[in-house]
Amino acid sequence: MLPKKPLVGIIMGSSSDSKIMHNAAKILDDFGIIHEDQIVSAHRTPTRLEEYAKHAEKNQFRVIIAGAGGSAHLPGMIASHTIIPVIGVPIMVYNDKSDKKSEFKFSAFGGMDSLLSIVEMPNGSPVATVGVNKAANAGLYAAKILAAEFTELKSKLKRFKEKQHQSVLAESDDLKKNGLSKFVQKKFK
Amino acid sequence: MLPKKPLVGIIMGSSSDSKIMHNAAKILDDFGIIHEDQIVSAHRTPTRLEEYAKHAEKNQFRVIIAGAGGSAHLPGMIASHTIIPVIGVPIMVYNDKSDKKSEFKFSAFGGMDSLLSIVEMPNGSPVATVGVNKAANAGLYAAKILAAEFTELKSKLKRFKEKQHQSVLAESDDLKKNGLSKFVQKKFK
Amino acid sequence: MLPKKPLVGIIMGSSSDSKIMHNAAKILDDFGIIHEDQIVSAHRTPTRLEEYAKHAEKNQFRVIIAGAGGSAHLPGMIASHTIIPVIGVPIMVYNDKSDKKSEFKFSAFGGMDSLLSIVEMPNGSPVATVGVNKAANAGLYAAKILAAEFTELKSKLKRFKEKQHQSVLAESDDLKKNGLSKFVQKKFK
Amino acid sequence: MLPKKPLVGIIMGSSSDSKIMHNAAKILDDFGIIHEDQIVSAHRTPTRLEEYAKHAEKNQFRVIIAGAGGSAHLPGMIASHTIIPVIGVPIMVYNDKSDKKSEFKFSAFGGMDSLLSIVEMPNGSPVATVGVNKAANAGLYAAKILAAEFTELKSKLKRFKEKQHQSVLAESDDLKKNGLSKFVQKKFK
Amino acid sequence: MLPKKPLVGIIMGSSSDSKIMHNAAKILDDFGIIHEDQIVSAHRTPTRLEEYAKHAEKNQFRVIIAGAGGSAHLPGMIASHTIIPVIGVPIMVYNDKSDKKSEFKFSAFGGMDSLLSIVEMPNGSPVATVGVNKAANAGLYAAKILAAEFTELKSKLKRFKEKQHQSVLAESDDLKKNGLSKFVQKKFK
Amino acid sequence: MLPKKPLVGIIMGSSSDSKIMHNAAKILDDFGIIHEDQIVSAHRTPTRLEEYAKHAEKNQFRVIIAGAGGSAHLPGMIASHTIIPVIGVPIMVYNDKSDKKSEFKFSAFGGMDSLLSIVEMPNGSPVATVGVNKAANAGLYAAKILAAEFTELKSKLKRFKEKQHQSVLAESDDLKKNGLSKFVQKKFK
Amino acid sequence: MLPKKPLVGIIMGSSSDSKIMHNAAKILDDFGIIHEDQIVSAHRTPTRLEEYAKHAEKNQFRVIIAGAGGSAHLPGMIASHTIIPVIGVPIMVYNDKSDKKSEFKFSAFGGMDSLLSIVEMPNGSPVATVGVNKAANAGLYAAKILAAEFTELKSKLKRFKEKQHQSVLAESDDLKKNGLSKFVQKKFK
Amino acid sequence: MLPKKPLVGIIMGSSSDSKIMHNAAKILDDFGIIHEDQIVSAHRTPTRLEEYAKHAEKNQFRVIIAGAGGSAHLPGMIASHTIIPVIGVPIMVYNDKSDKKSEFKFSAFGGMDSLLSIVEMPNGSPVATVGVNKAANAGLYAAKILAAEFTELKSKLKRFKEKQHQSVLAESDDLKKNGLSKFVQKKFK
Repeated sequence: MLPKKPLVGIIMGSSSDSKIMHNAAKILDDFGIIHEDQIVSAHRTPTRLEEYAKHAEKNQFRVIIAGAGGSAHLPGMIASHTIIPVIGVPIMVYNDKSDKKSEFKFSAFGGMDSLLSIVEMPNGSPVATVGVNKAANAGLYAAKILAAEFTELKSKLKRFKEKQHQSVLAESDDLKKNGLSKFVQKKFK
Repeated sequence: MLPKKPLVGIIMGSSSDSKIMHNAAKILDDFGIIHEDQIVSAHRTPTRLEEYAKHAEKNQFRVIIAGAGGSAHLPGMIASHTIIPVIGVPIMVYNDKSDKKSEFKFSAFGGMDSLLSIVEMPNGSPVATVGVNKAANAGLYAAKILAAEFTELKSKLKRFKEKQHQSVLAESDDLKKNGLSKFVQKKFK
Repeated sequence: MLPKKPLVGIIMGSSSDSKIMHNAAKILDDFGIIHEDQIVSAHRTPTRLEEYAKHAEKNQFRVIIAGAGGSAHLPGMIASHTIIPVIGVPIMVYNDKSDKKSEFKFSAFGGMDSLLSIVEMPNGSPVATVGVNKAANAGLYAAKILAAEFTELKSKLKRFKEKQHQSVLAESDDLKKNGLSKFVQKKFK
Repeated sequence: MLPKKPLVGIIMGSSSDSKIMHNAAKILDDFGIIHEDQIVSAHRTPTRLEEYAKHAEKNQFRVIIAGAGGSAHLPGMIASHTIIPVIGVPIMVYNDKSDKKSEFKFSAFGGMDSLLSIVEMPNGSPVATVGVNKAANAGLYAAKILAAEFTELKSKLKRFKEKQHQSVLAESDDLKKNGLSKFVQKKFK
Repeated sequence: MLPKKPLVGIIMGSSSDSKIMHNAAKILDDFGIIHEDQIVSAHRTPTRLEEYAKHAEKNQFRVIIAGAGGSAHLPGMIASHTIIPVIGVPIMVYNDKSDKKSEFKFSAFGGMDSLLSIVEMPNGSPVATVGVNKAANAGLYAAKILAAEFTELKSKLKRFKEKQHQSVLAESDDLKKNGLSKFVQKKFK
Repeated sequence: MLPKKPLVGIIMGSSSDSKIMHNAAKILDDFGIIHEDQIVSAHRTPTRLEEYAKHAEKNQFRVIIAGAGGSAHLPGMIASHTIIPVIGVPIMVYNDKSDKKSEFKFSAFGGMDSLLSIVEMPNGSPVATVGVNKAANAGLYAAKILAAEFTELKSKLKRFKEKQHQSVLAESDDLKKNGLSKFVQKKFK
Repeated sequence: MLPKKPLVGIIMGSSSDSKIMHNAAKILDDFGIIHEDQIVSAHRTPTRLEEYAKHAEKNQFRVIIAGAGGSAHLPGMIASHTIIPVIGVPIMVYNDKSDKKSEFKFSAFGGMDSLLSIVEMPNGSPVATVGVNKAANAGLYAAKILAAEFTELKSKLKRFKEKQHQSVLAESDDLKKNGLSKFVQKKFK
Repeated sequence: MLPKKPLVGIIMGSSSDSKIMHNAAKILDDFGIIHEDQIVSAHRTPTRLEEYAKHAEKNQFRVIIAGAGGSAHLPGMIASHTIIPVIGVPIMVYNDKSDKKSEFKFSAFGGMDSLLSIVEMPNGSPVATVGVNKAANAGLYAAKILAAEFTELKSKLKRFKEKQHQSVLAESDDLKKNGLSKFVQKKFK
């Protein structure tokens, strides 16, 4: 049985990253995996890195999901402070429309800066990295890791895969029957 | 005479790719080439790859056009399962305006990820790749391949080329007569 | 039966490209497909482009394989002059050790210049592109195209695939039995 | 005295490029240099390349300005057909708002494809390239070339430079007096 | 005590850069550091480079902050003319909405051109570079440099850091209490 | 106690990848984790993908480490066939000096092709990716995952970290005592 | 008649650039065009920029060829100081084997830094750029510019083109007769 | 007078970085600026980051020079822990010939990973970055910063600049007198 306490720690470098990172939370919620969510900025709260790593070990988190953009140091720094596996989510900075002052928060380099900052860790301190803004995949990967210990997740993962499969099949049948022209008209009208 | 059954299989990794891929269908329709359209996701329906390859060989498709974005594995995987020539279409992920939930479906790397994933196939398993989002070119290339067997396509291809030529000539004459300043005012008003 | 005359035209922008392009010839030779090899420089012999296209149509080449590096215009220009399908091979410039004077023939951009020059053709003039320096794949793709007309190539292509498969299996068995450490010592000693 | 006939030929690969290329025309108009404007598509009207080159030599054009996007072959191909100096303008494909059907005319690679296709010409066939979409600079460079023969252009070029200088000085004085905060409020209100 | 005269010179290549560069001014204002703001275009006012460098030395500026986009030569050229430390701000060109004529002022290469133009200075002429459009960081770095001489800035910098720390803590507590789903709904509603 | 049977499956796309991948084996060996090593080519043995996934599930592998170069499809395809977590290792193709025929096995794009092919997986099929050629990190990450189930690995991981720490300290003391000039002379002499 | 005094000024940022730039000199020598060669470092001798521009105007140079690497500011700065047309040569830094101390003079970014630094000049200050390390093309383009004034260069340029054409034809005939396999053996033996 | 104790702390992420970083030491030695050199690995000794920052503040270092490669987190992490200005040196990983085991320590991405990891710091935590492997420039920039407090450095910096200037002039005179062909023969013989 999945325990009633957090197994996964989700952290991000800034509150604006929450707009991407909540997709990791959503997948974990769907799988019934409890998580604790925090903001830990490698650059604005550097002393919290070690503190958070200890907190995570003390609370026996099995996995840490860490998202960050730009010079994305958070995933690698947390991975260096603990033996808990860390999943890194490179975040592409975006123009946050809800915030009028952010007009010039441009996205330079299409996320390449955060991807390389996170994935190119030296031997000895791995961060397992998912695609740019692919927080949902980080949540799913956490479930895959946890499935060894909490075997009920195995059947949930298999149902998830089967559902993906069926959903594609249904769309494919629709497409095959209608042909591309009609399918597109209907879908994007 | 072009047969009344599909000669070309068009597949794509996701239903959202249909917005690009229907341009391949349109060209084939213009040339009177029948095609069958399906969604085959390398990642969500991996067991369908071999199945589809057998389906294509059994139905004697002459060409397969396969479009995919991101880690674009579909064209290369189908090409590895069959001796039918595969044309790959790298797709740049876009912000699908028709779908309110897709606000963060950003395009990372301007299509470079899907282009390299498709074109850099190892020796032994070629995928013939067209430009990013250039599905129309995939349709046209399929017609070029089919023209060896169905020679009526040769004259259609020549008329297509001649029409392109004439259309540019007409615009060029207009531009030459009016000069750039007037031409632009008229065109983009 | 495969005819005793060229079905494929292989062209390249410079004689130094032959060091890469002969891999296309080798595959075609292995499949018993006769080819004619020429140098056609889009930039040094521009008037030959149209001439070569006519030559290829007159001699009923089924496929043209065109390799070029840098501002690689040859594949696209030939494709624009003919309705014969063109396979483009982006070539990464290399330091030709056999030629003492070429000391500074640097490779800028790792082949990205030739790849983008060849693959990003506008709609209406497709070039089917293989990976950088993957001339062997261009030869193999030509065989796939020809197999519709010359069906004996189908069984040859299937044997080729089967042989690839068996060769990997044999190496995998060796690796599985010895484990990575011994395997590497033996292989790279 | 500047003659009353075209000294510069402006060509572009497609009518949509006119939106960028008219900036070259504008500069030439400002300098009183007559130009002839045409559309010559390397891919849709390949036989016109040699024809245009002859036309340009017969009409004694001193400079050719050629703009193209994507697999941008036009500048290099014209340069290969003539001894007239060619200035290349890499064009970044854009979403043409005036044309409802162009919704998916995405810009892949931020103009890198056209820049590399134009600038990386092999030794023996130079194209002098300006920045992406910098058609105005192509017009200005043409004036610099023509100034050797038509010396009245020298004083025009010096006035142009002096005017640039004065215009920056005036803005700088405004900025220095007001300081950045007020300057920005006033300018971007 | 911080003097009542400019310690920092802020310069930029064009008045449109002011929209980014005023963030440097804002930080300096917050720290009570007086600055002088000017426009010095390396390309439109090249003779002002040496002049400005002398002006800066004569007025005993301690730091120069220089922002520029595209072929960004301003920071490096000023650094070459003076021994005063120069902080470079790569600016990504943007579509200035306040200016109707700027429709085609595209951003090519996501700021990579200006970043590399500024940071890759040869040994002997360093420019200390901050991130693309990160003018605020340039202002902050100037304060760090000045703190050696004007020690009151040390406590201001420490308060700045402490405030950053507290602000992240507060947001993190909010996130931890509400969880990602609620936090995102509240924040981006 | 760690079991006497394979917990980790190591696979790679080609026997030449073994030169990189044996570093993953080495780390696992150091931690006493048994692994099974195979070659599974997504392109040359596509039918083995599903077969291998079943083999891995049947043998209860906890983690699969998959390395591949170029159009690197192996990690993503295996991840799509199983719920076992997959760690992807992008491999940069290199000039294999032990093999005289490989003279032109150039490295295009410095590993960017394999990195993007592996990491940019769509939501629903995650591959946790390490840095280019960083196979040792893949092995270490596998140990981190296994530590939840086999707790003796926790202390081994802590000793590993402590040893890294001490080793850096010792070098740092040497450097601090000698200064950079002497240190470099001694080290690289 | 070509005058017996320099028509072209060749400058470069560093003496090590001479290894590339002498190819421009060689072409000019072949065409009988006299040139003056200097080193003008934008960063180490910034006050010489204006001085050199005046020297060039006083000596009535018709064209300036400027080569530089890294943050390549020389071509753009000279272009900003004069109305003489400037041809820019981006130089890729290389490991100078003749100089034992240069072991770490790495080439970062394959010349992309110098290309973008030179080509992306703002409107108003054009630099006509050739390919990375393509100094020979800069020399040839200078000859094309000079041919308007010194018409004897026209026939020389035509002979140059004709010779290129014939040389390719001869190699092509050799290749066509021997086929790729023999041709490669003979050429690269 | 320059004090007899360290004013600058030089740190690097790994002992192999010393081969690049000693160039910073050399410049400081030339200027008579005492420095302390250490290895502080963000990933292998994460707890030393805060410790080192305190050590630097306690010893009143005026500047910290930090070099790192790959996912280069050291400069940004130190900058986040202290108000002392940090100069970042992106290091391109190289094949260390002195170490036989390092055969596969490839350089991925030509230093782009470390450059972006260091320079793209978020607002609030600046790192002033120099070019890839340009450690000498970091040393020189430190001298520029220190010159405000230790004014004797001003004349040293001016002499340094003057010497650079004279050295270029001497080479330029040699080149001008001999011409490029002879100059190159003599220099690279």
